[in-house]
Amino acid sequence: MFTLGIDYGTNSVRALVVRCADGAELGTAVVDYPSGNQGVILDPRNHLLARQNPADHVYGLEKSVKQALAAAKKTPGFDAAKVVGIGVDTTGSSPIPVDAKNVPIAFQAKFAKQPAALCWLWKDHTAIREAAEITALAAKMRPAYIAKCGNTYSSEWFWSKILHCKRTAPSVFKAAYSWVELADWIPSLLAGVEDPKDVVRGVCCAGHKALYADDWGGLPDVEFLSALDPALADLRERLYQKAYDATTAAGALCPAWAKKLGLPAGIPIAIGEMDVHYGAIGSGVCEGTIVKVIGTSTCDCGVVSAKKKVRDIPGICGIVRGAILPGFYGIEAGQSAVGDIFKWFVEGILGDVKKHASLTAEAAKLKPGQSGLLALDWNNGNRTVLVDPQLTGLMLGTTLYTTQAEMYRALIEATAFGARVIIERLKEYGVPIERIVCAGGIAEKNPLLMQIYADVTGCTMLLAGSSQACALGGAISAAVLAGAHPDFPTAQKKMTRLKKISYKPKRANQETYEKIYQIYRKLHDSFGGLDSKADLGGVMKELLEIKSSC
Amino acid sequence: MFTLGIDYGTNSVRALVVRCADGAELGTAVVDYPSGNQGVILDPRNHLLARQNPADHVYGLEKSVKQALAAAKKTPGFDAAKVVGIGVDTTGSSPIPVDAKNVPIAFQAKFAKQPAALCWLWKDHTAIREAAEITALAAKMRPAYIAKCGNTYSSEWFWSKILHCKRTAPSVFKAAYSWVELADWIPSLLAGVEDPKDVVRGVCCAGHKALYADDWGGLPDVEFLSALDPALADLRERLYQKAYDATTAAGALCPAWAKKLGLPAGIPIAIGEMDVHYGAIGSGVCEGTIVKVIGTSTCDCGVVSAKKKVRDIPGICGIVRGAILPGFYGIEAGQSAVGDIFKWFVEGILGDVKKHASLTAEAAKLKPGQSGLLALDWNNGNRTVLVDPQLTGLMLGTTLYTTQAEMYRALIEATAFGARVIIERLKEYGVPIERIVCAGGIAEKNPLLMQIYADVTGCTMLLAGSSQACALGGAISAAVLAGAHPDFPTAQKKMTRLKKISYKPKRANQETYEKIYQIYRKLHDSFGGLDSKADLGGVMKELLEIKSSC
Repeated sequence: MFTLGIDYGTNSVRALVVRCADGAELGTAVVDYPSGNQGVILDPRNHLLARQNPADHVYGLEKSVKQALAAAKKTPGFDAAKVVGIGVDTTGSSPIPVDAKNVPIAFQAKFAKQPAALCWLWKDHTAIREAAEITALAAKMRPAYIAKCGNTYSSEWFWSKILHCKRTAPSVFKAAYSWVELADWIPSLLAGVEDPKDVVRGVCCAGHKALYADDWGGLPDVEFLSALDPALADLRERLYQKAYDATTAAGALCPAWAKKLGLPAGIPIAIGEMDVHYGAIGSGVCEGTIVKVIGTSTCDCGVVSAKKKVRDIPGICGIVRGAILPGFYGIEAGQSAVGDIFKWFVEGILGDVKKHASLTAEAAKLKPGQSGLLALDWNNGNRTVLVDPQLTGLMLGTTLYTTQAEMYRALIEATAFGARVIIERLKEYGVPIERIVCAGGIAEKNPLLMQIYADVTGCTMLLAGSSQACALGGAISAAVLAGAHPDFPTAQKKMTRLKKISYKPKRANQETYEKIYQIYRKLHDSFGGLDSKADLGGVMKELLEIKSSC
Repeated sequence: MFTLGIDYGTNSVRALVVRCADGAELGTAVVDYPSGNQGVILDPRNHLLARQNPADHVYGLEKSVKQALAAAKKTPGFDAAKVVGIGVDTTGSSPIPVDAKNVPIAFQAKFAKQPAALCWLWKDHTAIREAAEITALAAKMRPAYIAKCGNTYSSEWFWSKILHCKRTAPSVFKAAYSWVELADWIPSLLAGVEDPKDVVRGVCCAGHKALYADDWGGLPDVEFLSALDPALADLRERLYQKAYDATTAAGALCPAWAKKLGLPAGIPIAIGEMDVHYGAIGSGVCEGTIVKVIGTSTCDCGVVSAKKKVRDIPGICGIVRGAILPGFYGIEAGQSAVGDIFKWFVEGILGDVKKHASLTAEAAKLKPGQSGLLALDWNNGNRTVLVDPQLTGLMLGTTLYTTQAEMYRALIEATAFGARVIIERLKEYGVPIERIVCAGGIAEKNPLLMQIYADVTGCTMLLAGSSQACALGGAISAAVLAGAHPDFPTAQKKMTRLKKISYKPKRANQETYEKIYQIYRKLHDSFGGLDSKADLGGVMKELLEIKSSC
């Protein structure tokens, strides 16, 4: 038996064919989105805007699956007829405005050039004002709504984006019968769902992102939504009543798509989850294991048994029952930009896409503290623990002799310090952390970064066995749903593994980074608004002191 | 009648032949120093170190003067026999260890590879610890010593450097019979002085840099120097008792050098001054006129009549009677790096020396505040008003879309904000500022920078008429000494002028920069240690607010 995982990333979509018995990856294919700037539609006048074209999603679906199946066919014993399920993950919250037939309104000619009609990509921050408004209203009217997401509703999330659309592109809002998360829409497309109300919604995206919880009867109530905008209260009717965890199927593969892809019609489609959540499953997440998916941004995922009482954790944006694994609270934290910061520096500032490797090699020769530099990793705001998209990057300690490699390393270190803030916050609130398993392109390809993370956090960094952990997680979910394994722990045991390499903290480096981290915290708390009286007068000298002792 | 100005910069030496009657510049020549990195000997393991080779100074002297005279000969009526005086300016404090014959000990074979035997260039910061020690001792024992230099003795200055030499290169210290400032040594070389005690020392370099003042009988007393190090007290004997302003000649041209250069022997050599001081004279400094010499670093020079009482000004490093013009207190402030910061960013970070022009063009298209960036101009420490070499550069407000041109402009703006801090401090303490005249390569070549300076400071920026203001100032001093003009004001009136172009503040830009300057001051005071309770929590949002209103 085999299952198929399909992973919609920021720049491309990947399909992966997996053998249920042992997790062997038989075929894979990556298809880049044809639109925009590497798949992202930007607005040069507004750096907050980031959209995707749903047509790219449809195009990439067919192409990637067909290619992955073709690749798998080279393995003896594989047959597309033996594919028993499909699991899909995507970025999120990435809502799409759809018509009454569940078709993206971007497909209508009159909206073809209207960015508001596209898929509102997770990292779109245009709705900052609306997020602040929702945060303020919830604090006043419904504090429980935001207690589980760090008491701050994000501009990256469902309601902020829809409200911003209503205000800035009313014709799009009016034309939209409903809004569907990309993670729910792709399964519904495969299942041939033709009414948005019939789309099976995953609790993973619904959770804190759409303020959904069983505790208060699903989506936010009409009174609350009316206070934001009566149109949102009307929309509520056309959204959904209930969201599901991965024990429920999103549907069955419809004949049309079965034919298109060359797969058996009627096989189950797992509930759509966010990429990092399925990535966590594919990396072996369980109680005590935090999975870090390190890519353009970083997501940290953990689970705590639903039998335990989980306190709200300030600044942690998502604690949702069933969001990752059924029967567990899913805990999600993250850093809004990691790889994106390195990419910006190397490609945007240095203007040389080929330089990543040589800079990494040079940066690896530097000792901790040797550059005298310290950076804040906020070029795309701060998700955890400050939950503030309106923060920006900072670098201090530059001299007339500061080099490219020193700055590059300082940016890597900044993301490591940001990672440590998250780990410390989770531990402080009792989330058990016995292992950290890393996944994602950067974790695999950048040993320097991994060693710095180990040295800064004091934790051994393990590596997920699969390079395609998100797609693998989708395939695992499909395998459980199809009955290939009795439950997730069993499926994970059979279908996931760790790489042999791991990164252990080095004592001397740890000691230096401990000192620098204290300075990072000072800057973090000061510029992040946590400490209005931080004394920064000695900061530059402290860094020079550390530098001179290197 | 003609005079010759010779200007020793950081990377090259320039000679200029000037007609006394009208300041016409008849011949000029620039000679690059052959040693080190563009004339500066660096230590890759210690970014604080910066030295020059005295052999370069001698080599450049002969070559530049001969070339300048050759060029002048093309003008009808010029004759080298009609050159009536020579004026020399150099960087400072740039002391040279010399033997009992006034020969740099670097010329001895055994010291050829010893950086401590070279000329300790103004921007050498290796003596940070010694500077702090002198500051602390003076505060305790002789507060008056440092009251006129912002209550802080600098690592760039005479005693710090000599004490650091004693401690880190004792063999060099022992071999040095005496130490002579480059500004005094070149005139003494031309005058054929063969005993360091006979070198006529200028009060310009002696002033606060060697803690010389008539008030306390010249150099610091034996008791004070002994408390630092008994060897310094011994050295005092072999330095000098008295330092002179520009009414006294440094000597007369000796036959050997007269022959070498093709000039009349016996013509007077003006007292050596620091480059910016003669630059101020060559740019028309007088009471009410501040001269900004904008180059690798920036110096601000003003004068106040010696008949008035001048208060000590906190953070202003030099208020010395006769340091610029005889009969006036010379006031000197400055920024440790200006052009050097742009050079670092473009050549050191972007790695493309050719990019200055295109970045300037792109940056000129941006509006004030549009980048959302704010930088501190401290890549080489802060001279005025913080007097702290152990400060470093900072840039904040970066996003994933920040461009090279935005960063470049932010660095220019940072130096403009730094310039404004100086102007405000001077005004606050009653130094009259009616005009700002700018000189130096950057002032002439970068209209964008000049407009930003006008917009940030609210002052019209005028341009000195000569592109060689420092050398011209030396030539003016020589002309007064030789009797070509009765006094400096008359000589300046005849021999200096302004360029026709000037930069007036633009109202709209001023308003935006006013807001950003307030944020700059907050960062400046916080990181500079003036305000230990600055609340920086809103800073990034304020910049984004300004950006979004652009």
